[in-house]
Amino acid sequence: MDLSVVAPVAGLSAMTFAGYLTKRVLKHETGTARMKEISSAIHEGSEAFLKRQYKTGIPVVIVLSGILALTLGPFTMLAFIIGAVATSLAGYLGMSVAVRANVRTANAARRGLSDALNIAFYGGAVMGLSVTGLALLGISALYYLKLDLTQLLGFSFGAAVIALFARVGGGIYTKAADIGADLVGKIEAGIPEDDPRNPAVIADNVGDNVGDVAGMGADLFQSHVCTLIACMITGNMLYGVNGVVLPLLMCAAGIFATILGSLMVRTKGENPLLAINKGIFTAGIIAVIAFYFATQQTLGDLNVFYAILSGVITAVLLALVTQYYTSYDRPPVRAIARAAQSGPAINILTGLATGLVSTAPTVIILCATILISYSFAGFYGILIAAMGMHAVTGMIVAVDSYGPITDNASGIVEMANLGQKAREITDKLDSVGNTTKTVCKIFAIADAVLSELALFITFFITVGLTAISIIKPEVATGLFIGSTLPFILGSFCLRAVGNAAFEMIEEVRRQFREIEGLMEGRTKPDYGRCIDISTRSALKGMTAPVILSITAPIAIGLTLGVEALGGLLIGSIAGVMLFATFMANTGGAWDNAKKFIEAGHFGGKGTPTHAAAVVGDTVGDPFKDTAGPSLNVLITVVNVIALLFAGYFLAYAILM
Amino acid sequence: MDLSVVAPVAGLSAMTFAGYLTKRVLKHETGTARMKEISSAIHEGSEAFLKRQYKTGIPVVIVLSGILALTLGPFTMLAFIIGAVATSLAGYLGMSVAVRANVRTANAARRGLSDALNIAFYGGAVMGLSVTGLALLGISALYYLKLDLTQLLGFSFGAAVIALFARVGGGIYTKAADIGADLVGKIEAGIPEDDPRNPAVIADNVGDNVGDVAGMGADLFQSHVCTLIACMITGNMLYGVNGVVLPLLMCAAGIFATILGSLMVRTKGENPLLAINKGIFTAGIIAVIAFYFATQQTLGDLNVFYAILSGVITAVLLALVTQYYTSYDRPPVRAIARAAQSGPAINILTGLATGLVSTAPTVIILCATILISYSFAGFYGILIAAMGMHAVTGMIVAVDSYGPITDNASGIVEMANLGQKAREITDKLDSVGNTTKTVCKIFAIADAVLSELALFITFFITVGLTAISIIKPEVATGLFIGSTLPFILGSFCLRAVGNAAFEMIEEVRRQFREIEGLMEGRTKPDYGRCIDISTRSALKGMTAPVILSITAPIAIGLTLGVEALGGLLIGSIAGVMLFATFMANTGGAWDNAKKFIEAGHFGGKGTPTHAAAVVGDTVGDPFKDTAGPSLNVLITVVNVIALLFAGYFLAYAILM
Repeated sequence: MDLSVVAPVAGLSAMTFAGYLTKRVLKHETGTARMKEISSAIHEGSEAFLKRQYKTGIPVVIVLSGILALTLGPFTMLAFIIGAVATSLAGYLGMSVAVRANVRTANAARRGLSDALNIAFYGGAVMGLSVTGLALLGISALYYLKLDLTQLLGFSFGAAVIALFARVGGGIYTKAADIGADLVGKIEAGIPEDDPRNPAVIADNVGDNVGDVAGMGADLFQSHVCTLIACMITGNMLYGVNGVVLPLLMCAAGIFATILGSLMVRTKGENPLLAINKGIFTAGIIAVIAFYFATQQTLGDLNVFYAILSGVITAVLLALVTQYYTSYDRPPVRAIARAAQSGPAINILTGLATGLVSTAPTVIILCATILISYSFAGFYGILIAAMGMHAVTGMIVAVDSYGPITDNASGIVEMANLGQKAREITDKLDSVGNTTKTVCKIFAIADAVLSELALFITFFITVGLTAISIIKPEVATGLFIGSTLPFILGSFCLRAVGNAAFEMIEEVRRQFREIEGLMEGRTKPDYGRCIDISTRSALKGMTAPVILSITAPIAIGLTLGVEALGGLLIGSIAGVMLFATFMANTGGAWDNAKKFIEAGHFGGKGTPTHAAAVVGDTVGDPFKDTAGPSLNVLITVVNVIALLFAGYFLAYAILM
Repeated sequence: MDLSVVAPVAGLSAMTFAGYLTKRVLKHETGTARMKEISSAIHEGSEAFLKRQYKTGIPVVIVLSGILALTLGPFTMLAFIIGAVATSLAGYLGMSVAVRANVRTANAARRGLSDALNIAFYGGAVMGLSVTGLALLGISALYYLKLDLTQLLGFSFGAAVIALFARVGGGIYTKAADIGADLVGKIEAGIPEDDPRNPAVIADNVGDNVGDVAGMGADLFQSHVCTLIACMITGNMLYGVNGVVLPLLMCAAGIFATILGSLMVRTKGENPLLAINKGIFTAGIIAVIAFYFATQQTLGDLNVFYAILSGVITAVLLALVTQYYTSYDRPPVRAIARAAQSGPAINILTGLATGLVSTAPTVIILCATILISYSFAGFYGILIAAMGMHAVTGMIVAVDSYGPITDNASGIVEMANLGQKAREITDKLDSVGNTTKTVCKIFAIADAVLSELALFITFFITVGLTAISIIKPEVATGLFIGSTLPFILGSFCLRAVGNAAFEMIEEVRRQFREIEGLMEGRTKPDYGRCIDISTRSALKGMTAPVILSITAPIAIGLTLGVEALGGLLIGSIAGVMLFATFMANTGGAWDNAKKFIEAGHFGGKGTPTHAAAVVGDTVGDPFKDTAGPSLNVLITVVNVIALLFAGYFLAYAILM
């Protein structure tokens, strides 16, 4: 029996189950007229932005399709287009359920926690299942079309390009709005979070959807397919068809585990975190058991299973490290909060110090994973460990999308004035969302690093390099330039958010100053202008990173040759691993230091200490939600380009 | 004729000329009783700290000497001790003249600019000449003692260990004091810079001497000797004795060029920058001409001269890049100043974006230098280009030490109330010092990167590695861990400064609150307690970085072997190059953005925009003056350890 048939079956199951969950979400009430009004403003804003974002991407996709067709042939082009469409579709499907789930969560919160949790989580699970389901369907379809496996890379490239647009664009959008809403509304005007008088409040809620739902979904879609395809290509070279089927089976197992895990997320009690953890652990355990049987059925080598297991354990360990550095029950975040007593500068310095040192345990864990998985099963061991880490991507995406849904729900409760009880429930759900979000972010980074290592291994095996020696000056050059890429992309993202936030702050200040009766609640702010600022800035900021990540590997490949390109790849992997971890953890730590103060420590809200912590949180916003996550995608694009055009570089490089 | 004899002659000339300049400085008057009192407080504070710093270093030096004697023999130990002593001596000599030149500069400023410039510059030149002179004397002595060249590495190791103490300790000391003095004195209490009522003002002035004079001098001493020794070792292997003599001749030429250049720094007019530039260019041109003849006399290969020239040109290009990103006449700094209008967070984000992107041109220039110098003369080309960049180290150190002398002089003018005219002159001298300081910082970084590359090349040639392949998992692991080192060290430095500044701020606030009549000028503050906080913090913060940089290469070398260690070296070089450049330029840009606002733009001093810019400047202080410069030294220690113990790692590594 051809076991690979399990893959499309799992993909279809994911989509069917996503449809079922959507139905369950939609059958809930949307509440009062005011709620419907707010929710449809968020809904329309989100869809409008996603459309403009995709539209901006279309010319790029067309140009790249042309180039691929001319250089690598129509099948690679076809795979590329399907990859781009599938990624867009996954983002769109997930987000369109999320923007419907938010208002229903808010409405259910008026009755109690249980239903509200279910709606929010199921809304997120639709995204999780769409991501993993469409990935598996797309790749199985191309596999059955008998595409050469390296042509499948086109799919990964399409996914990565769209994800880069989505991450960078969504990240800029959401943080410009968030910073504008917070700094002027909360600090200068002194009105609460999500207050309808705040002109940037709708843009802020839209941002959660386009950035944290659609952007994140596209990102995990691309790293999921990139790992899968890398495993299939290398598996095929090393073990033939069984090496191809194993990763497909693992993805399928991950989907079934996610479905079963999702069904466990329910609570009669009051602890949503417990319910979500139950879901994650159930999915994880089922996946690991399934991986054991999948390995036995295909390669029959227990060592390969151990390599997979090392990937799963890595994910758990990294989550613990992140929690240590970013949770406000632990010393690092408390030290940052304490430092805020001397003002914003010391708060910033302490936060940066925390984020910088958090890279050390992260890198040590990842290096240990590399050495251990390699010792079990050679290079394939590293690849399959990366696949193991992807075990429950569906569940991770579900939990990650749950965050912005509850965040939106809190906003709707506040704006529609649904009262204290509902606010308490959505706040409780939201605070769980914040915890899970930070952990998911590190998962996405670790996952990206292992995925890129998988691509890198596939690169040098495909090209036939037996060594990439850094004592060649051109390799050292490639390495240095590769390590610089995260710095440049980070700069683009921080600058774009900085500029957009600057404009947003001026606009919100202007509305408070010029619109009469706004503060008294007699007139409405002009939400549209804030949405417009976020949109324009996001679209403007998306292009440079895409161009950078496409041209850098081509420039090095064509001038200094494939070995130098190998240097560029490893340099970019090292750089992104460090920089993305640093940014995610620093941002998370500042955020929670502010929350710790808001919980009443060191004077609490309204003190200079709190104002100082808000500065740290604001600087951290684009760290953790724009630059950090965009870096993951950057390296996929760089690595996939290297792999796709490796043959060209071998043939045409100037220096070789 | 044995040309190598030129080296000790040049070294002696440097010391003699330094003695002559010291006499010229000392013959000037020290001014009023009040001036003498302030100056001796700074003087005593600086010497007291330096003594405690050296004392803290002694046990480490003793332990390391023991280890070296047992493993590598008594000669390496001897070289190590001489290196440590020479570095300490260079720092001490330079600083002890600087703390005497400051008050004399202040006094001369009452009469006019010409003498004040001369005293300040000659004071700095003593440091420049001590650094290059002692380096050359020490190395020539060991060379004539017929030490094996690799035993000379002990000298480099001794220099690097002391320099690491000096840079980290001095950097923490100076920034804790600076931040405390600025944030509470200037911002909260609203008194001017250097006001004697500020309890941290003496500590601040002491900090300039121990950090920017002694620390910087020790740093450039170590990178100078490390390049020289690397060139001698590799030169010997590739070209025999001529390959050893060439770098010695170059250092000697650099000293004579510095002496002649120093004599050109004089002005009758009003433009001190012009005078200093005249000195630098004179020295540079003389050095390049001398390099040509030195190359012809030794290797007789014009290609080697071109490689040297590429190093010199690199230094000039990097200075231009730095000026672009950090000067307030250029768009990047103005954009940061403009962003301060939206508050500290956007100011911080814009500054970070600027510093991050500034790494791109820096890395491209350095990579071009590597490729070009390699194409001229192979690996020796890269080494000798590094040596070329060191051409006028003496001049650079002189100019760099001039900065803190004028800074101190300004402080003395303010504290001793010497009037408007003197203040204007010292301010003018000081502002030139600020410009040259930033450029010198980047020089130190670029210089360190090329020096480390030189050591790295010497490492793999010595070990006999013909390839260090990053597709071996252990090499990739080494590379990843190496890239993490700058993050960890950066964290140590930022945290130490953050904690010390926190304590300092509380103390200065306390004194303003509790000491009666302080603000009215009736009572004096307790300067001693602030000096004590800086001292304790600096001594506490010095140890961890030294341990880290010594243990990391040993741990990797003994477990994963020399090839993995090669990965660690190249990773740390890449990481330091990027991180140190980022930190130096970000810090410099924030500093000048604040100065741009203080010059009257965007509302000028006392506005919220200015307060926001001060936050950026404060965060930038440890970036540019503690973490950034310490990174340079970190990689020397790591690289030298690798080279020293390479034989051990080859013999005893667990995995090979």
